[in-house]
Amino acid sequence: MTADRLSRWLPCNHWLRHYNRNLAGQDALAAIIVTLMLIPQSLAYAMLAGLPPITGLYASMLPLLLYALFGTSSSLAVGPVAVVSLMTAAALQPLFPAGSADYIAAAMLLALMSGVLLLCMAVLKLGFLANFLSHPVISGFISASAILIALGQLRHLLGLPAAGDNALAMAVHLWQAAPGTHWPTLLTGVCSLILLFLARFRFTSWLQRLGCNETLAGHIGRTGPVLILLLAILLASWLDLADAGVSVVGNVPTGLPSLTLPSWNTALAIQLLPAALLISLVGFVESVSVGQTLAARRRERVEPNQELVGLGTANIASAISGGFPITGGFARSVVNHDAGARTPMAGAFSALGIALTVLLLTPLLHNLPHAVLAATIIMAVLSLMDLDALRRTWAYSRPDALAMAVTMLGVLLVGVEAGILLGVGLSLLLFLKRTSEPHIAVVGQLPGSEHFRNVRRHPVIQSPSVLSIRVDESLYFPNARYLEDQVAKQVSEHPGVRHLVLMCSAVNLIDASALASLQAICERLREAHIQLHLSEVKGPVMDQLRRSPFLDKLSGQVFLSQYAALLALDPQTTRLALDNKATVISKPA
Amino acid sequence: MTADRLSRWLPCNHWLRHYNRNLAGQDALAAIIVTLMLIPQSLAYAMLAGLPPITGLYASMLPLLLYALFGTSSSLAVGPVAVVSLMTAAALQPLFPAGSADYIAAAMLLALMSGVLLLCMAVLKLGFLANFLSHPVISGFISASAILIALGQLRHLLGLPAAGDNALAMAVHLWQAAPGTHWPTLLTGVCSLILLFLARFRFTSWLQRLGCNETLAGHIGRTGPVLILLLAILLASWLDLADAGVSVVGNVPTGLPSLTLPSWNTALAIQLLPAALLISLVGFVESVSVGQTLAARRRERVEPNQELVGLGTANIASAISGGFPITGGFARSVVNHDAGARTPMAGAFSALGIALTVLLLTPLLHNLPHAVLAATIIMAVLSLMDLDALRRTWAYSRPDALAMAVTMLGVLLVGVEAGILLGVGLSLLLFLKRTSEPHIAVVGQLPGSEHFRNVRRHPVIQSPSVLSIRVDESLYFPNARYLEDQVAKQVSEHPGVRHLVLMCSAVNLIDASALASLQAICERLREAHIQLHLSEVKGPVMDQLRRSPFLDKLSGQVFLSQYAALLALDPQTTRLALDNKATVISKPA
Repeated sequence: MTADRLSRWLPCNHWLRHYNRNLAGQDALAAIIVTLMLIPQSLAYAMLAGLPPITGLYASMLPLLLYALFGTSSSLAVGPVAVVSLMTAAALQPLFPAGSADYIAAAMLLALMSGVLLLCMAVLKLGFLANFLSHPVISGFISASAILIALGQLRHLLGLPAAGDNALAMAVHLWQAAPGTHWPTLLTGVCSLILLFLARFRFTSWLQRLGCNETLAGHIGRTGPVLILLLAILLASWLDLADAGVSVVGNVPTGLPSLTLPSWNTALAIQLLPAALLISLVGFVESVSVGQTLAARRRERVEPNQELVGLGTANIASAISGGFPITGGFARSVVNHDAGARTPMAGAFSALGIALTVLLLTPLLHNLPHAVLAATIIMAVLSLMDLDALRRTWAYSRPDALAMAVTMLGVLLVGVEAGILLGVGLSLLLFLKRTSEPHIAVVGQLPGSEHFRNVRRHPVIQSPSVLSIRVDESLYFPNARYLEDQVAKQVSEHPGVRHLVLMCSAVNLIDASALASLQAICERLREAHIQLHLSEVKGPVMDQLRRSPFLDKLSGQVFLSQYAALLALDPQTTRLALDNKATVISKPA
Repeated sequence: MTADRLSRWLPCNHWLRHYNRNLAGQDALAAIIVTLMLIPQSLAYAMLAGLPPITGLYASMLPLLLYALFGTSSSLAVGPVAVVSLMTAAALQPLFPAGSADYIAAAMLLALMSGVLLLCMAVLKLGFLANFLSHPVISGFISASAILIALGQLRHLLGLPAAGDNALAMAVHLWQAAPGTHWPTLLTGVCSLILLFLARFRFTSWLQRLGCNETLAGHIGRTGPVLILLLAILLASWLDLADAGVSVVGNVPTGLPSLTLPSWNTALAIQLLPAALLISLVGFVESVSVGQTLAARRRERVEPNQELVGLGTANIASAISGGFPITGGFARSVVNHDAGARTPMAGAFSALGIALTVLLLTPLLHNLPHAVLAATIIMAVLSLMDLDALRRTWAYSRPDALAMAVTMLGVLLVGVEAGILLGVGLSLLLFLKRTSEPHIAVVGQLPGSEHFRNVRRHPVIQSPSVLSIRVDESLYFPNARYLEDQVAKQVSEHPGVRHLVLMCSAVNLIDASALASLQAICERLREAHIQLHLSEVKGPVMDQLRRSPFLDKLSGQVFLSQYAALLALDPQTTRLALDNKATVISKPA
């Protein structure tokens, strides 16, 4: 294997060669801040996934190392993230009791499958599949997930039992069970929420007012949540909150996880396949968009196909070290970037920090109230909600807004997978519906130019004997018959026409169905003594037409440009128009 | 209701006003020929559908009357057709024993559902759905169905029991069971086949040689199959073939069918829904293509939406008069057209002919051997096979050929419904795959013109400071991220460029995902000190862009044409190119 191919598959090979003390210092500082941020988040997202909190720490060690080896983004911080944890819970909760041994094993299996699927997509170059998760679908999915997550965590804040598998059922259940609220738990949760809010929006400016410089204040500000976690543990131990009925994390095993392959169960794997596929795609899309945004700031590039390898190996690493599905998180990656991470080594350093935590600090977690973790989750997901996006999208494009709304409703009322699938399905259907009745314009020459535009929008010159029609769509099976209808209609509305020029500047494909339609159109026009011509046919389309007998049977010619066609078929009108001497016949409506 | 709206919903209102003796004479002649053709075909296709032969005659009365009232094609002859009968059998045979009372009732229910679905499509303007059955899928489906039908009928010719639910299983079964061939049945079948072959390809020319004029010979030629049917009945009665073990039709009820609604069964209806939907779509597509082809010959038009009403009411009529799903048949319609049918009244006359047959001639059918009907079916479907279509399509378009091959294999090896669904699914997937990585061309000015083309295909002039890129696809979610990548790539390959003009002549849509990508591209280019411009943006796309903040944030301008853009951004090079004085820098590869 050449060095070049090696560094394509192992991008670390590239940056490790130039790694030095200076870069290491910057990476280490970023790693400390990210680690302090990662501890509360990974505990919380494990709880969100229905797993023991410690598994969140397990999922934040080995995967970070693997991503450092195989990933291409210098800023991406992988680990447990809210949306993927929610999807994990949604996939597993119907099958096993949350937190049971079967549930934990299934989560590992899900991570393994997700990792293998990502690697398969890398090998088969199927990364393009992720593109089908359109912007509105992803945006609607994330906002709705945030609502679903926040609703689901409210019960931890109120100290109520779990119930309801969709947003409506959860809300109704919370409303009905509200009288049974456990007040010490609620107090713990609300205090945590207030403190987390202050830490997020006020802490940094207070530090600055105390004389810290902006950068340092920013760095210390990020440690707010971990300080609140410590404070909560101290207070919970001191006030003996567990005895007061406040649910706490309880005994946590100390030491690194043992490395084992998840136990294989074919029936279960088949059941989990759709969830694994969607988790892979959603995780990949989230990760790549964060990575690309951050890379653009430093004029770097993220290689999507290699990201599949990075995330795939990271998920497999999570699976064999007792974790669950993970991906690159938005908030954490931005912090990593802002704190100055220069290479993926920062991730490896973070993994080291988490390993030290697992080795030394787990006994501390015993008295951590679940309500504090719930508050952490709620604070984190609130920033993911972008309900205004629906209004903005509606203003720009109704079909996109419809897809977004359906995704949101699907996620809230049916389930996370159903929501995504409904959104993607509707996006495709609306596109195909649109493309099946394309915009078709009769065009004329803009006076004084060789340019042809829609007669209804521009003051143009039309030849009396040549009808020019521009079809604004590729010609393929959904619209082939529509084209036949439209041409017949236009011809009947323009008596006296001897030539019809189909301007193909917007035709990017003519498939076999459309070819049959074109042949039928040509035959019908021939019987009406009208010649069919094509203009501005693109290279690739022309190459394909040459492989069929169509061009031999065409009654007219193929012109390089619409202007060349008109110049040949009606030189007089065309020259007058170019010299700006013709009278404009058509007026825009 | 105004007369205009009335004649839109009841097209007969239009032609009945001008109906006269002359038209009636022409229609009646065509009706006699079609009736004589319809008798053997409807008996045979009923057998193909797994139903008693008499139901084929039932399905050829009332539906023809209803189509005459609501249909728009003057030539279309509706009734039982091979492909729809095959689909009926495929849907019902897994559920009930062929020919049982439950089976007959289910066939009526299927016709009812199919009719109601067609009417729903008419009301909801969903006729465009039929367009998703692309030309290659329909062609592959029909060829494979013909093979499947012929294989299925061979057992009647050999006098063997039924077996196998796919082409392979049928072929294996026939091979294994061949030693049990019933020789008298085979003799009957082979003789029928030979006679049918001669009737089809020789009869007319013999008649001409005997002094008949061409038209009369053609008309008499069409009656060959019904004469063979009569001959077979006479011989079978005389030779007592039934006693020799040759399977015959047996007792046939005399008299018109009683009119009853099929008994409703919700569970069964849900089970039959996919089949009913596909039968409706396939029937509609077949019918409309035949109708349009024949209408074009006489400069008439077929109104697809009204055809949905015509076929929908015809199927409902079939359901309530003891029939099964029907549609417009290709061969019969061509005969109807050639025999001079001028209005849908010809269909009503045919219905009358069939009614007389049912009232008077059914006792004759008792001794008709099944093998003769099987031979009729085999002769009819052989002409539907167009295996060369696969080769022609392969030469023109690999994805289309792939969709055709998969449809054929699906129909032959899995089932008729599965075949169609596989074909349609694959067509869509291949289109989306293609569209997700669109063709992108760097363009330059053709010397001496205002026209811009691909630098790799044409000798053109490129400005050193302006990069012109033409994207040959609508910009929407499957390719939004690809565009970002490609623009980054092109910019890095063209250092020194200060302006990038995106030529949007082939962009028919910019959806919300692509808009986000364009914004990202604009921002990234701005940081690299490159202005982003658009040119040749179409009216509808421009209208939409104006509803977003994108144009306010655009670093460059929107130009009416690519030439106008270059004239503004690099006047010197552009003017020299127009005057044909510039040196061609790029050479086509």
